[in-house]
Amino acid sequence: MAKNPPRTKPPRGNAVIGQSGGPTAVINQSLAGAVEALRDTLVRKDVVKRIFGMRHGVNGLVKDDLIDLTKVKGKALDRVARSPAAALGSSRDKPDRDYCNAILNACSARDIRYFFYIGGNDSSDTCRIVSELADEAGYDMRCFHIPKTVDNDLVGSDHTPGFPSAARFVATAFAADGLDNASLPGVKINVVMGRHAGFLTAASALARECFEPAKKKSGFEPGPHLIYLPEVPFDTDRFIAEVQEVYSRLGRCQVAVSEGVQDKDGTPIATRLAQGLDRDAHGNVQLSGVSVLGDALADLVKRNVKTSSGKQARVRADTFGYLQRCWPDPSPVDAAEARAAAEFAVACAARGFQSGSVAITRRKGKKYRAEYGRIDLRDVAAKTRHMPESFIKGTSNVTRAFSEYCRPLVGPLPRLARLGS
Amino acid sequence: MAKNPPRTKPPRGNAVIGQSGGPTAVINQSLAGAVEALRDTLVRKDVVKRIFGMRHGVNGLVKDDLIDLTKVKGKALDRVARSPAAALGSSRDKPDRDYCNAILNACSARDIRYFFYIGGNDSSDTCRIVSELADEAGYDMRCFHIPKTVDNDLVGSDHTPGFPSAARFVATAFAADGLDNASLPGVKINVVMGRHAGFLTAASALARECFEPAKKKSGFEPGPHLIYLPEVPFDTDRFIAEVQEVYSRLGRCQVAVSEGVQDKDGTPIATRLAQGLDRDAHGNVQLSGVSVLGDALADLVKRNVKTSSGKQARVRADTFGYLQRCWPDPSPVDAAEARAAAEFAVACAARGFQSGSVAITRRKGKKYRAEYGRIDLRDVAAKTRHMPESFIKGTSNVTRAFSEYCRPLVGPLPRLARLGS
Repeated sequence: MAKNPPRTKPPRGNAVIGQSGGPTAVINQSLAGAVEALRDTLVRKDVVKRIFGMRHGVNGLVKDDLIDLTKVKGKALDRVARSPAAALGSSRDKPDRDYCNAILNACSARDIRYFFYIGGNDSSDTCRIVSELADEAGYDMRCFHIPKTVDNDLVGSDHTPGFPSAARFVATAFAADGLDNASLPGVKINVVMGRHAGFLTAASALARECFEPAKKKSGFEPGPHLIYLPEVPFDTDRFIAEVQEVYSRLGRCQVAVSEGVQDKDGTPIATRLAQGLDRDAHGNVQLSGVSVLGDALADLVKRNVKTSSGKQARVRADTFGYLQRCWPDPSPVDAAEARAAAEFAVACAARGFQSGSVAITRRKGKKYRAEYGRIDLRDVAAKTRHMPESFIKGTSNVTRAFSEYCRPLVGPLPRLARLGS
Repeated sequence: MAKNPPRTKPPRGNAVIGQSGGPTAVINQSLAGAVEALRDTLVRKDVVKRIFGMRHGVNGLVKDDLIDLTKVKGKALDRVARSPAAALGSSRDKPDRDYCNAILNACSARDIRYFFYIGGNDSSDTCRIVSELADEAGYDMRCFHIPKTVDNDLVGSDHTPGFPSAARFVATAFAADGLDNASLPGVKINVVMGRHAGFLTAASALARECFEPAKKKSGFEPGPHLIYLPEVPFDTDRFIAEVQEVYSRLGRCQVAVSEGVQDKDGTPIATRLAQGLDRDAHGNVQLSGVSVLGDALADLVKRNVKTSSGKQARVRADTFGYLQRCWPDPSPVDAAEARAAAEFAVACAARGFQSGSVAITRRKGKKYRAEYGRIDLRDVAAKTRHMPESFIKGTSNVTRAFSEYCRPLVGPLPRLARLGS
C-alpha cells in the first residue's frame, strides 16, 4: 500500500467487527479472538472506547443493527468461540462502491476507526473498497480482513481458517462411509463443497490413512478410490470408465466429487445434468443445498456401470451439505489459528498499521507450525486460489504432497478397522 | 416357545455369527461382544470348537464364504468394535423358506450348532424360519437374534442398539445446522432416515437442548421448529402454512423431515413428488441415497413461502444420508449396550436356551439403566414398531416425554451458544 505510510498513530474511536459469507466451525474463534485482543490492547489503552458487532455483516452495519461487545463476559465469549456458524449473523451481500460508501457513512456516524471483517475473498474486497473510500474522504479508519473460508481459496496463504475443520469432517465422513460401502458393496458417490477450488474434496484422501497399518494385512483397499476436482476437466465417459474399472476390480467404488466439477469448456456438470438450478445473489449457480449433481451422477452410473454378470451396479449418492462447514468438532489446529489470525489483525491495528489482510504461512521444517503476516488487501481481494498442479494426480486422484500438506491441519482422525477385505 | 423346552444341554459343535441390513456405528460392538463371550464360555468349556463369521450375512454362509474368528486377537477385535459399519460385511437378502433351507444345509455341513444374527426385523425373521426348519429336521441348532437398527422399530424393546448413535448424530447435526441457519437465515429442510418409524427424525428435537440455559437470555429460538414424522399423515398445504408461520415469526425455519413421510392414504410423499425412484430387493422404494424428497420440498417452499416483502424465501435442503448410521462417534451408552446385548445372547446359548431375540428394557427410576431379556423370535420377527402417540405432539412436533426417553441414550451433546437472536 504505497499510498499510505505503513504505520501511523492509532486514532481514537470505536471498533466494529463483522462476519461474512458461508459460516465455518471456527469463525467464532476469530470473533472472540478479535474482541479479547482489542480489550487487551486498544481498549485498555483507552484508544478504542466501544467494540460493536455487526448483525449479519455489513448489512447490519448500514442499518445500524449493532451489538455492543465491549463488555461481553469472557465466559460467554468462550462458549460462543466453541460454537460453529457466525454468532453475529452472516451476510451474502457483495458491496459495490455505493454500498461501501454507505458502510463508510455508518462507520463515521458511530465514530468507528477500526473495521474488522471476517470472511473470504469477497469480504477482503469489501475491506479494500471501504479502506480506499476512507482514504479518499480523509477519514482515518483502519480496515482489516480476517481470513475465513472452508474452500481454502484465498491467495497468499498456505491455508485458510475454516478449511481444516471442514477437511476434518470430510476425511472422517469418507472413512466411515467407506466402511459402510464395504459392508454393503456398490458404487457410492459423495458430493463435497467447493465451487472452484478442490481442496475440500481432496481432503477426502486423508480417509485412507484412518486404516493404516491394518489395511495391508486385511487386503482392504480404503477409499475414496476416485477423486474429482473442479481443477480437472470432468469427462463423463472417462468418469464411467474409471468407476467401472474400480468396481470390476473391488466389487465396490467410493467416489469423491466436488460440487464444482466442470467440463473442458468450464460449464459446471451440475448445470449440464439438470435444469432449473437457482442462481445466488452473485449470479452463481447454487450448488450447495441441492443434491442434483449427486443424483444425476448416480443415475449415470446406474445406466452404464455393470456387475460381472451384466446387472446394474448398486449405486447411492450423498451430498454432504452444510454439515461440512458447521460440524461442531473442529480441528484443534484450526480453532487455535482462527483465533490467532484475529489476534494478529488486532495487533496490526494496535501497532499502527493502516489496513491489510492476515496471511497464514507454514514454517519450513518437520514439525508443523503456522506463522502470521500482514498482506496488502489488493493482493487477496476477489482473487481465487486453486489446487496447485503438484497436488493433483492424473484425472482422479491427489498426490502424496497434498496429503502431507493437509494432514497436520485436520487434527487426529479416527483409527478404524475391518475384518477381511 | 411352547414347542421347545426352554432349556436343554448345549450341543457340541461350531458357532457362526453374521451381520445383516443397514450397518450402524455400533454393530461391531455386538460382533466383538459375541465372539469374546463365546470364547469366555462355550469355547473355554470345549462345547464350541470354532467360531465362524459369515461374509455378508447369510449370503456368505450359503456360499461357504466364512472367516474363522476363533482366534482373532483381542486387540484387533477391539479396533473393529470401535469401527462403524459391518466388519464382516452385511447383506440385504431377505431369505424365504428355500433360502433358509440352504442356510440350514450350510450350517449342517459345517456342524454349526449356534447361529447368531445381528440385524433388524428381517434378520429376526430369518432366525425364526431357520430355527423352525432346524426343529422340523431334528437338527439341534440354537438361533439367536441380536437386535440392531438405527430405525429403532423393533417391537418388544425400549430401544434398539444402533439407534442411540444415529440419534446422537442427528441431534448434533441439527444443533450445528441450526446455528448455520441463524447465521444466514432462511428455510432449511433436513431429511432424516427412517422409512416407517419416526424415532430418528424425532431425535432432532434434542438439538434444542444444546443451547440451554443461554437461549432465554439471548432470545434465540433453537430448532428444529417443525418435525415431520411418518406416523403423522403429511399434508402439503399444512406443511406450507406451518413453514410460513415460523418463517414470518422468526425470519427463518429449520425443518426435520423423515424420508418416510406419507400422505393420509399411506403413499410416500417422495413417490408423489418425484418419478423414477428405485425399488430395493424387498420391493420398497429407495429413500436413502437419493435426495429427491428434500429437493422437492425445498421447491415447494420456494414457490409458496414468502418474505414479509413478498419475495421468495431462501430455501436449502440437505439429506443427511448414510453418515447418520456410520458416523464414528457413537453414543457411549449405545456402544456398551450393543456389546451387552450380544453377550446376553451368548449367555442364553450357554445356559441352554433354544433360541430367541434379545430385548432391551429400561429399569424404572430416575437414573437410566438398561436391562436385557430373552423374547420369542415370533414376537419380534418382521414386525414394525412406531412412535407411540405419547411421543407425538400435534402435526409437527414431539412431546417432552419423547425427549426424556431419548436424552439418556445419546450421550453428552455439545453445548453451543450464539450472540443475540
